[in-house]
Amino acid sequence: MSKYWNSRVKNIIPYVPGEQPGDRKIIKLNTNENPYPPSPKVIEDMQNALNADLRLYPDPDCIMFREAASLRYNVKLNQVFAGNGSDEILAFAFGAFFEKSAEKKEGERQVLFPDITYSFYPVYADLWDIAFRKIPLAYDFSINCSDYKMPCAGVVFPNPNAPTGIPVPLADILSLAGYLEEQSRVLVVDEAYSAFGSESAIPYIEKHPNLLIVHTMSKSASLAGMRFGYAIGSGELIEGLCRIRDSFNSYTVDRIALAGAAAAIKDTVYYEMINSRVIATRERTSEELRSIGFDVLPSASNFIFIKAPGITGLSFFKFLRDRGILVRHFNKEIIEDFLRVSIGTDEEMDKFLECCREIRRKS
Amino acid sequence: MSKYWNSRVKNIIPYVPGEQPGDRKIIKLNTNENPYPPSPKVIEDMQNALNADLRLYPDPDCIMFREAASLRYNVKLNQVFAGNGSDEILAFAFGAFFEKSAEKKEGERQVLFPDITYSFYPVYADLWDIAFRKIPLAYDFSINCSDYKMPCAGVVFPNPNAPTGIPVPLADILSLAGYLEEQSRVLVVDEAYSAFGSESAIPYIEKHPNLLIVHTMSKSASLAGMRFGYAIGSGELIEGLCRIRDSFNSYTVDRIALAGAAAAIKDTVYYEMINSRVIATRERTSEELRSIGFDVLPSASNFIFIKAPGITGLSFFKFLRDRGILVRHFNKEIIEDFLRVSIGTDEEMDKFLECCREIRRKS
Repeated sequence: MSKYWNSRVKNIIPYVPGEQPGDRKIIKLNTNENPYPPSPKVIEDMQNALNADLRLYPDPDCIMFREAASLRYNVKLNQVFAGNGSDEILAFAFGAFFEKSAEKKEGERQVLFPDITYSFYPVYADLWDIAFRKIPLAYDFSINCSDYKMPCAGVVFPNPNAPTGIPVPLADILSLAGYLEEQSRVLVVDEAYSAFGSESAIPYIEKHPNLLIVHTMSKSASLAGMRFGYAIGSGELIEGLCRIRDSFNSYTVDRIALAGAAAAIKDTVYYEMINSRVIATRERTSEELRSIGFDVLPSASNFIFIKAPGITGLSFFKFLRDRGILVRHFNKEIIEDFLRVSIGTDEEMDKFLECCREIRRKS
Repeated sequence: MSKYWNSRVKNIIPYVPGEQPGDRKIIKLNTNENPYPPSPKVIEDMQNALNADLRLYPDPDCIMFREAASLRYNVKLNQVFAGNGSDEILAFAFGAFFEKSAEKKEGERQVLFPDITYSFYPVYADLWDIAFRKIPLAYDFSINCSDYKMPCAGVVFPNPNAPTGIPVPLADILSLAGYLEEQSRVLVVDEAYSAFGSESAIPYIEKHPNLLIVHTMSKSASLAGMRFGYAIGSGELIEGLCRIRDSFNSYTVDRIALAGAAAAIKDTVYYEMINSRVIATRERTSEELRSIGFDVLPSASNFIFIKAPGITGLSFFKFLRDRGILVRHFNKEIIEDFLRVSIGTDEEMDKFLECCREIRRKS
């Protein structure tokens, strides 16, 4: 604690990302990165952008990417926003669409999100002084959209949810969007993992002007190290994001990332190929784990959320770490016996499954 | 205006950056970019970082850059912060060190900055609900540090100031830092242009734990298109910035920018060479302009702030634009007859000087 910090910095509890160990021998299944490299076309276009023009500012409007995205999703140019990772865009969305609490805490001024979800949401809310309420998951760890139909400041959740991996039915999302629209509230759907099996709500943004869909290139486009995210929504929502961005940092996306992102959104063939491999590996891994008695939640993502019988989550985590496999454990009551395991290559998952069989023999 | 925007978005007036025209025939002297390309070593290290590892998140601690910076400036690793451009770092600094106004507006809760300065400062203050007070420049357009010695929430200014280009004496800055330290207030010195002739306060951060120095790679390192900035200050100030960053976007710097920034901070020989050329061109241009009757403020930056006799700033701006030269005009009372002109290559400045002589003949 420093006397130079203001009350915001003193009180906030920052988000803690998963470890990024330097040791390359570790099997890294802890931050949901894609096990396959980015598209060769992406690397090529980034190479071409690496030239003397770096002395010049990038295009603050990111037109090259936004044009490609509007073609891909059949939306208008002004319905696309580009940012330095989807975390940045979520931070802007909290800053743009949810009213600050101004010391009041009644139900109708709270933003709603699940109690078990991406743990950055409460941090964003605290950053901008927004009151929030955590809605419990259903008995089967799913998100029940009906639970969010109440007076509120807005709703945010990922589809599929993290760290459970469970998808939310699209019809339920659209019904909730309609309900919130009557209250003039925004629904943010964080589709970070939607390429791995859930249904995107992007085709419905024209019908629901209060629906903001956020995507990242960190998982499905295999570009976590490049930092790029985007949002699709009505022109007025996108303009709101622009106003916050331009009050914060006008040029958040650099020239090289802009070229890479435009190439990535076009190369659907390559990405469908690698992501269908991730899905196949996930299904195989899930089946094998279930066959040896593990609880495996039904994932539509590039990770699985699992519970080993007869061992605590923390012991299981340490057991794996001792064998050179890094996964994610959340020190949180309801899910403390679960581990989130990113889907790696088949070879990596075979080594992981070997450890799982070993722990079953021991317990 | 949208019913989905919160009061922050509705009320804020975003920063408007200088134009980025696509037309390459234009002589672009409007956003203070370096006319020379980045160091070949920078390009090479960025090329090497462009590989399959892009699938992995970058190092959130930016160690590669921070180690290089700590060697260059003879400071500790925990006294260096890296960000996605210095604008982002300034936004974090406003969010970390200046108390929000909480509806009160008395003098002692206001952050102070000059009335003529980087126009992003009031935008940051509004973004975070921080009350501010603009302190008038002295009669000669300089910043007088004594004017800032009053009860306040903190002080921010650039050295040299923008858009005037006039440097602030280092002794005055250190005296102000000492005064503010007694009040437990932070002094942010935005040294975006310090490589072009002013004296940096970095050697004094050990003596003044309330002094934060912010640098950018957009001007002196010729990397505006890469997006990278850094701050140097006491460990407690840097930790405050980290806490805000980690409540906003944990990975703001991508793998390629990290490699480029580490290379740039090491290659002092190349950058001193190109920046001394910029300084020489600035001095020659300033002298020539003075000799034909222009007002030219004494710049220690990579731009000059000038006034043509007998013509309004806006007319002069349009006159230049009609001849394919883009400069920056600020529609603000005290400086409306001035133009800010970035220093280009000698060839570009010769064309600019030709236009200036033409306007003198006409007026």
